[in-house]
Amino acid sequence: MQPSVPYQPQESTPVQQDFNTNYYAGLYKEELLDNILPFWVQHSKDEKNGGYYTCLNRDGSVFDTDKFMWLQGREVWCFSHMFNKVAPRQEWLDMALHGAAFMEKYGRDKNGDWYFSLNEQGQPLVQAYNIFSDCFAAMGFAALDKAAPSDRFKEIALTTFENILRRQHNWKGTYNKAYPGTRSLKGFSLPMILCNLSLEMEHLLGAARVEAFIPTVLHEVMEVFYQPDKKLIVENVYHNGDFSDSFDGRLVNPGHGIEAMWFIMDLAKRLKAPALLRKACDIMLDTLEYGWDKQYGGILYFKDILGKPPQQLEWDQKLWWVHVEALIALAKGFIYTGDPRCAAWFKKVHDYTWQHFRDNQHGEWFGYLNRQGEVLLPLKGGKWKGCFHVPRALYQVYSTFEGQ
Amino acid sequence: MQPSVPYQPQESTPVQQDFNTNYYAGLYKEELLDNILPFWVQHSKDEKNGGYYTCLNRDGSVFDTDKFMWLQGREVWCFSHMFNKVAPRQEWLDMALHGAAFMEKYGRDKNGDWYFSLNEQGQPLVQAYNIFSDCFAAMGFAALDKAAPSDRFKEIALTTFENILRRQHNWKGTYNKAYPGTRSLKGFSLPMILCNLSLEMEHLLGAARVEAFIPTVLHEVMEVFYQPDKKLIVENVYHNGDFSDSFDGRLVNPGHGIEAMWFIMDLAKRLKAPALLRKACDIMLDTLEYGWDKQYGGILYFKDILGKPPQQLEWDQKLWWVHVEALIALAKGFIYTGDPRCAAWFKKVHDYTWQHFRDNQHGEWFGYLNRQGEVLLPLKGGKWKGCFHVPRALYQVYSTFEGQ
Repeated sequence: MQPSVPYQPQESTPVQQDFNTNYYAGLYKEELLDNILPFWVQHSKDEKNGGYYTCLNRDGSVFDTDKFMWLQGREVWCFSHMFNKVAPRQEWLDMALHGAAFMEKYGRDKNGDWYFSLNEQGQPLVQAYNIFSDCFAAMGFAALDKAAPSDRFKEIALTTFENILRRQHNWKGTYNKAYPGTRSLKGFSLPMILCNLSLEMEHLLGAARVEAFIPTVLHEVMEVFYQPDKKLIVENVYHNGDFSDSFDGRLVNPGHGIEAMWFIMDLAKRLKAPALLRKACDIMLDTLEYGWDKQYGGILYFKDILGKPPQQLEWDQKLWWVHVEALIALAKGFIYTGDPRCAAWFKKVHDYTWQHFRDNQHGEWFGYLNRQGEVLLPLKGGKWKGCFHVPRALYQVYSTFEGQ
Repeated sequence: MQPSVPYQPQESTPVQQDFNTNYYAGLYKEELLDNILPFWVQHSKDEKNGGYYTCLNRDGSVFDTDKFMWLQGREVWCFSHMFNKVAPRQEWLDMALHGAAFMEKYGRDKNGDWYFSLNEQGQPLVQAYNIFSDCFAAMGFAALDKAAPSDRFKEIALTTFENILRRQHNWKGTYNKAYPGTRSLKGFSLPMILCNLSLEMEHLLGAARVEAFIPTVLHEVMEVFYQPDKKLIVENVYHNGDFSDSFDGRLVNPGHGIEAMWFIMDLAKRLKAPALLRKACDIMLDTLEYGWDKQYGGILYFKDILGKPPQQLEWDQKLWWVHVEALIALAKGFIYTGDPRCAAWFKKVHDYTWQHFRDNQHGEWFGYLNRQGEVLLPLKGGKWKGCFHVPRALYQVYSTFEGQ
């Protein structure tokens, strides 16, 4: 891996005329190919036990050996995706196959549900209480099946997908601590991910089945979770769609709302629905404006829609994934609608992100900054940060700007 | 309630000779009686539905109406304790009885286990997955039974205590997400709380039963969870006592270790065991030195014993309870051992705490500061902060300095 070249901000120029998408496309592609992917190829592969280490220090050395299924599945997806979309490099396919073999061997319980975590050798540590483990496993195996078609990969992806559908309305099962009936809330994450996952699995599910998911997701996101009076999406609402004045009901996660809007923009493009595209772009910009920290810059992690104190102590921190999802959404917003606000915001978020998250010394990007923008944890990967959001965003931004 | 008088630090004087315990005793007692208790009497009582509001804004107004059983039980304990130990004020007894009536009516499931939370009207929101709800309920009813003896209060305290003992080795029950056998860790909290609780219930359990708990707790805390090479207590170890090199096994919570040490100092005093007292005082001072933030002052919330990145994003924050527990431990350390380091540290922690946590404008104390010492959440109470740590600490410090 080459040492990273320090990032130098572009000279400031009037944005609208001179928003140089070619410049950013080149920069993002180079960062993906020369910095991010080599870091994970070099540091995350567990040659002895299989699977990936994701708890990596600043210099890539391993600080913890536990294997979290979210991140195993996401890394399989990432290397498969790069093989499928960027270049058919054997090294990337090998990385994906390496993680998939470990997941296939150790990842599932007797019901076929995916554990939350395993130890280094593959023994289960935390039960299959979290359906997002299954979502990222299905996503990984579906992408891998495009890179290296296999009946086994297809079967794992499809069986997992059917299990997710079967469990989707009560996925916490016996681990659900909510008392039934008093305050039945539904979350915004699962419908979003299901839609995204079905698109990733379109070659296995067929277009008709994928398209059957779309109207529900559009309705849920744009009409149920979206609060028109505040122009914001909340994370949880009552099952009947009503607003819940509770910690969970008041919670806004700006990064999550912004991420959802680039999914919706992609759907709108597929559906050739310009009004929907316009609406998603506007919600994205409103959310960004709301989440932007006017005092220190960067996007806050959580806010309470009524301005009350959130219960999340980390509410004021700046997380990598929030910022890179915003960059994807702004790139798509600009290319799909031409809205100059997207260009101005892209430049602003880009400068913050590259100046604060990128590690010019050891490669890859930091994940967690405090409100002031200083590094809070010097890790490159951990329990939640792996080989996923940064490379996906670099790919999405450069390919969007290249008009792919 | 009177407006708070701004806190003025004492003139700096050489510590050892001039550590004015009378000054601090007066200050802490006055703060308890004139600021803290009136705040909760005025703002936390739900006159309509019963029980206490604990989610209070800076000015005491209610921002959320959910009722968390930890905090209901702790507030019953607090007002009962003040009635028992400080002055038999009817207002305090009424406050305790008010919360106990709500808890008795709505707080338990059909097994007699205490729910984690209820809504404003007392309907269950979150199941009885957390045994500390039961600990604080038993503690509250036992203290209330001293203030207003009643067969009902005795029965609730005793039944709850027996339930805790019955559940103690598998208290998460069906909510336990750990896969059995791969990494079986035990936590440091429950043995500590059980010991403390049995002491609180001595009038119901009898001295012999209480004293039967003591050797186990002393062994667990001082020999099993304490790591002599690092001179620190970890939060979790293997069931056989081995150190676990994992996120949970490496976790140090300095405030928790310091709190445990004042419990141990009290036990050592009861047992007339000066060597144990000395050891507990030394561990407390080592933990404080380790947890103290050399850059910004204050005590950090979490650290990793091997210096690795902790998984808690809030690791660098300054929490009220950590600081007030340290003040109790330092007051006891000074009075019980005469160690001048306790006096010097008391002054330092006192100054930080009173300057940063106390709200000179609206009364009571803030709970959550960022690393820099600025207010992170302007609340006076929430899901975890209620009428407990601050008043208990003010009482413990003044009564220790008064030699009670």
